[in-house]
Amino acid sequence: MTDFAATREKFHMPEGVVYLDGNSLGPLPKNAMARARSVIEAEWGEMLIRAWNEAGWMEQPRRVGDKVARLIGAAPGTVVIGDTLSVKVYQALASALEMRPDRRVVVSDSGNFPTDLYMADGLLRSLGRGHELKVVEPEAVADAIDSSVAAIMLTQVDYRTGRMHDMAALTKRAHAAGALAIWDLAHSAGAVPIDLAGCEADFAIGCTYKYLNGGPGAPAFIYVRPDLVGQARPALSGWLGHNAPFAFDLDYRPAADISRMRVGTPPVVQVSILEAALEAWDGVDMADVRRRSIELSELFIREVEARCPQLVLGSPREAQARGSQVSFRFEHGYAAMQALIARGVIGDFRAPDTMRFGFTPLYLGEAEVMKAVDILAEVIGGRLWDRPEYHRKAAVT
Amino acid sequence: MTDFAATREKFHMPEGVVYLDGNSLGPLPKNAMARARSVIEAEWGEMLIRAWNEAGWMEQPRRVGDKVARLIGAAPGTVVIGDTLSVKVYQALASALEMRPDRRVVVSDSGNFPTDLYMADGLLRSLGRGHELKVVEPEAVADAIDSSVAAIMLTQVDYRTGRMHDMAALTKRAHAAGALAIWDLAHSAGAVPIDLAGCEADFAIGCTYKYLNGGPGAPAFIYVRPDLVGQARPALSGWLGHNAPFAFDLDYRPAADISRMRVGTPPVVQVSILEAALEAWDGVDMADVRRRSIELSELFIREVEARCPQLVLGSPREAQARGSQVSFRFEHGYAAMQALIARGVIGDFRAPDTMRFGFTPLYLGEAEVMKAVDILAEVIGGRLWDRPEYHRKAAVT
Repeated sequence: MTDFAATREKFHMPEGVVYLDGNSLGPLPKNAMARARSVIEAEWGEMLIRAWNEAGWMEQPRRVGDKVARLIGAAPGTVVIGDTLSVKVYQALASALEMRPDRRVVVSDSGNFPTDLYMADGLLRSLGRGHELKVVEPEAVADAIDSSVAAIMLTQVDYRTGRMHDMAALTKRAHAAGALAIWDLAHSAGAVPIDLAGCEADFAIGCTYKYLNGGPGAPAFIYVRPDLVGQARPALSGWLGHNAPFAFDLDYRPAADISRMRVGTPPVVQVSILEAALEAWDGVDMADVRRRSIELSELFIREVEARCPQLVLGSPREAQARGSQVSFRFEHGYAAMQALIARGVIGDFRAPDTMRFGFTPLYLGEAEVMKAVDILAEVIGGRLWDRPEYHRKAAVT
Repeated sequence: MTDFAATREKFHMPEGVVYLDGNSLGPLPKNAMARARSVIEAEWGEMLIRAWNEAGWMEQPRRVGDKVARLIGAAPGTVVIGDTLSVKVYQALASALEMRPDRRVVVSDSGNFPTDLYMADGLLRSLGRGHELKVVEPEAVADAIDSSVAAIMLTQVDYRTGRMHDMAALTKRAHAAGALAIWDLAHSAGAVPIDLAGCEADFAIGCTYKYLNGGPGAPAFIYVRPDLVGQARPALSGWLGHNAPFAFDLDYRPAADISRMRVGTPPVVQVSILEAALEAWDGVDMADVRRRSIELSELFIREVEARCPQLVLGSPREAQARGSQVSFRFEHGYAAMQALIARGVIGDFRAPDTMRFGFTPLYLGEAEVMKAVDILAEVIGGRLWDRPEYHRKAAVT
């Protein structure tokens, strides 16, 4: 049984803040600063170049990958950390296309996060072989999978609505059609239980700065099904994916295992902070996280619908069809979110009218949810969003 | 006139160490820890998601790019920070190839750092259009440039020997043949004066953890000639290179300027540390750095040749033909370097027999160089490299 009182103690929360945006940037784990100090002062500062060996910097992306693996239903040795999610999407898709050289269609959906679609589009265009990126409605994905499809490329949990795809069913469907399945876990890792191995997913990628609390710009991860990794050409064939990086051969030979998905020198400081952040998951059972996340989300929906009838639920009503966030649609959502933030309740806004709220049991409980609802009801009922100061657009929304 | 006594004070150097490996990983700037603390505790910890606006995280890769621009002869607004050098090589080359659709040859040389060749090879292979990566000897590059060449892709300073290409001449030659010039500045930025704008170089990329002291895994940079940037398709078309990332359009439209070379979420903690590290360059004139670097290198060569006749100079003898490192070849170089490191003189080794020594006037002077030579003479003259403990191979060399 996960001890959520104990996990809560592992995070720093600013005074007076109810943080419902851990689905965008997780809060600071209390041990992160000490780890940063040690990697900067004791390792970089004192060991200098020797730290690559003495502090284990070179193996770190694999070691931290194993910690992520446990949270996404993957075996040790199948996940590696590095780069950004966009870059990892590119690698996964490029590898998948090479494995299905006779097929020309990639299926994705309109609920996918735009960067996945942009990266795919850029890749398909540069290949110049007439590939098509078929973007359908989320509900239409299953029917779009036929024998022309090389790969499906989907984000499991929709960044706007929280709607969750059935990974097992769609992967099965893809495989039945001879296609590969690539899953973006940006809004799933650390949010919902995932069983990559059980689903036989072919590739998965995700980011670590949301529910995994690795800090701003923490590096991404990539998973390749272990029986496929030997066929997966990394596409971005950087030296740290080489079988013997320090032989400095002129010819590229990929590592035999998931290390082939490494590209360049890893961001050691950020990987170190991520490694510390992942300690918060020691002893945490994802099934417990899911149960609590649903309790908190259901409470929020129930209370908001009762007290803010102006807001319309934008997420699936059925808990099992949602990830760990809840969206409400409201015409004045942008300003209302600014008013909320000014009162210490931090969620975020996605155009044109979506107010997003993330539920993260590691550091949130009923008291915070009720406080957020109280303030939301005050903002909506009192039309506080109508004040001009909440209508100024920020660069980043 | 650059005040090198003042710049030296800006770096932390471990007790008893003479650090001649700043060409691999620069040492810790004294202000880095305070900046790390502030980005982690005050920005991430207290502002949380709001820091993207309030702490200026989103603009940071451009702002820090401008600081690098000054050191490489580029105008403000032409350089952006992000990803790893390998990824930036890929972007530059992919863009260049799209600009020369009728040409099929990329010229590089055998002194290029392997990851550049690997990335190019992977890109050319995935394009599947019969491109050829022509790897010639460094001296043969000029003659290999003809009208079949789409781009030359060269590392200005050879990572093993320190041999420096003539950027202006080769770029001119490339342009005369209708080819584009891509320069990897990994071993030049912060090491030698560079005049990207004056040379009319088309693309440049580089890393920031060597002479720029940004810390382990600090992100790379990319430059695109301002009059070409509008034609440079980013290849890795991530959302932060979009013209309006927060519109979350389903279609990709690149930013008008160098921002199009951004890909995913930047590693904010590492970019922040890099920004602090670059303050060491305020008031520093690259011409002064070059003059001192040559003085130190010449002193080192003179003394080593006088006192260690077993070592053979592996770098060009002519100072103007070298970057800011000196290599000596020695049959027992690996063990000799271990023996040196055990005595506090840190350089590095590159197979099969190269001992590398970097000279970095920001924090090194004659006294350190003479101390290094004394210890080297002791190691070589006393055959200390013969001891078994110096023959154990480390994972990272």
